[in-house]
Amino acid sequence: MIIDCHGHYTTAPAPHDEFRQKQIKGLDDPKVMATLVRPEISDDQIRESLEGAQLKLQRARGTDLTIFSPRASAMAHHIGNEETSLTWSRLCNDLIYRVCQLYPENFVGVCQLPQSPGVPPQHSAAELERCVRELGFIGCNLNPDPSGGHWTAPPLYDKSWYPLYEKMVELDVPAMVHVSGSCNPCFHATGAHYINADTTAFMQFIEADLFKDFPTLRFIIPHGGGAVPYHWGRYRGLAEMLKRPPLIEHVMKNVFFDTCVYHQPGIDLLLKVIPIENILFGSEMVGAVRGIDPETGHYFDDTKRYIDGSSLSAADKTRIFEGNARRVYPRIAAKLDTLKG
Amino acid sequence: MIIDCHGHYTTAPAPHDEFRQKQIKGLDDPKVMATLVRPEISDDQIRESLEGAQLKLQRARGTDLTIFSPRASAMAHHIGNEETSLTWSRLCNDLIYRVCQLYPENFVGVCQLPQSPGVPPQHSAAELERCVRELGFIGCNLNPDPSGGHWTAPPLYDKSWYPLYEKMVELDVPAMVHVSGSCNPCFHATGAHYINADTTAFMQFIEADLFKDFPTLRFIIPHGGGAVPYHWGRYRGLAEMLKRPPLIEHVMKNVFFDTCVYHQPGIDLLLKVIPIENILFGSEMVGAVRGIDPETGHYFDDTKRYIDGSSLSAADKTRIFEGNARRVYPRIAAKLDTLKG
Repeated sequence: MIIDCHGHYTTAPAPHDEFRQKQIKGLDDPKVMATLVRPEISDDQIRESLEGAQLKLQRARGTDLTIFSPRASAMAHHIGNEETSLTWSRLCNDLIYRVCQLYPENFVGVCQLPQSPGVPPQHSAAELERCVRELGFIGCNLNPDPSGGHWTAPPLYDKSWYPLYEKMVELDVPAMVHVSGSCNPCFHATGAHYINADTTAFMQFIEADLFKDFPTLRFIIPHGGGAVPYHWGRYRGLAEMLKRPPLIEHVMKNVFFDTCVYHQPGIDLLLKVIPIENILFGSEMVGAVRGIDPETGHYFDDTKRYIDGSSLSAADKTRIFEGNARRVYPRIAAKLDTLKG
Repeated sequence: MIIDCHGHYTTAPAPHDEFRQKQIKGLDDPKVMATLVRPEISDDQIRESLEGAQLKLQRARGTDLTIFSPRASAMAHHIGNEETSLTWSRLCNDLIYRVCQLYPENFVGVCQLPQSPGVPPQHSAAELERCVRELGFIGCNLNPDPSGGHWTAPPLYDKSWYPLYEKMVELDVPAMVHVSGSCNPCFHATGAHYINADTTAFMQFIEADLFKDFPTLRFIIPHGGGAVPYHWGRYRGLAEMLKRPPLIEHVMKNVFFDTCVYHQPGIDLLLKVIPIENILFGSEMVGAVRGIDPETGHYFDDTKRYIDGSSLSAADKTRIFEGNARRVYPRIAAKLDTLKG
């Protein structure tokens, strides 16, 4: 079985995005806000949105199950206030739930958290609990910068995040550290802000002793861990300068990287320097880069090809494709057993 | 000859740093400011600060000439106002000049620019001109984020940077894109802010058509280009999505990466995916990571070992060690000819 740990619903039916546009307009126009109602989306519209995109690509690439979450760039936690974010997050998560109900063999849910700049992360715990306990989700996307590129939130080791971590530990679900769109013109969203956030989060984990306080807390850093594997020597050296234990003990029991790196040499580096047990297959599809690589004739984001094309043993490939995801997302096992039953 | 394009004066004599501390204190205390005078530093103090550090390491590692600039983390453009930054920058640059006068065979100068948040980059042009024309410097360090981690300046393609670029073109000197310390607790300086800035700058260059306006403008992106080589497929794909020409034409005639990547697999990736003519040898020493890698028994920042240990041809190694630096910093050639004469 091949589990893709990183898929977003980037192709949601139009009424979903229309709701969001109206919600944003309503922030400045109470009349518009007064008419805001949940969008009507039929099962067929959902099927149509997926059949030509994620499902088609799953079949074409030979992947089985996608750990599926709302479109990351549209979380836009910086827009509006706490209520704006809660309403939008619930709507997005409910739509993911419907996807998972329609295609239980193809998708399992991960939720967007209702974060907002200046609002304590604790306020996201209830929606996480609803998604896990009521909707059967197996994890969440946690935005380390709800300001959208201004980085006004405290670092991830700050105590203000702890109540949310306590809920994650209680529910035994991991978080993917994933920013949303950028409203800072310095940062292109998918080309700078995403990758910077990955690198930043990892360095924050080095600086602190978060995993002493939460030995079972787990994070997936997407996009191959940002710049980290390429600069693995630098991070090992910085850990030593900061009088921290070696990274393998200090961070890598709790932090995992996906394989959203869009060329063979990058994947080869990832597989060489990062322990295999810390790598989860992911593609970010349909996502950041949608084209075909003229150098290979294949989609940039067909990351399964790079794992297949690596020199790993079959056993190690299986760990990346399935075993590690089962360990990092323990609730997936119950899902898979249900399907078999 | 082996030219190290990335060295900072991280070991300046104590009176230099004492001046800075007093200058900062003086921002809130006019009495202190009134007593601020240029520090007295003897030639012997300068010699002593270098003999046990940069010069010792040059000899031990077999490198010849370091392109040398003030300590990057201490530029701290976010402190005080335009005058603060100008005073401090001139002092730092004058000290680099003295180093280069004392050791003309070992060091050639690159200047710190007197930037400040909200101040037009044009205001840095005069100090650049002074350093190049009067002090014999061959380039500058340009900070894309003078706010120190809040990223309030416009992107590097913004027209407000153009007057500074015009001066760079007129003087035929390149800039290394190099941030300073971070006053944003989210960003560890050398572990996150530096690497993020490298990645951010490269993506800004992809987004715009800056090099159509300045075909001879040249930037060095340090720390191996941040995350870029590791995500080279992503950047090639993003350029295509943004309807930009292939990166080789669009950016790589003007942008160069150094070799400050502190492990062999990282360097191997850099050498594999980035054209050799775009790579300049650099070590960042004495710099960000000062320890010895327990996995190799050698200093993390002894990057010459990684180039030596790569599978490149002797001719390609020579380009990285010398030829490319001569091309990117044309004023270095005159320096070297003077030395020979």
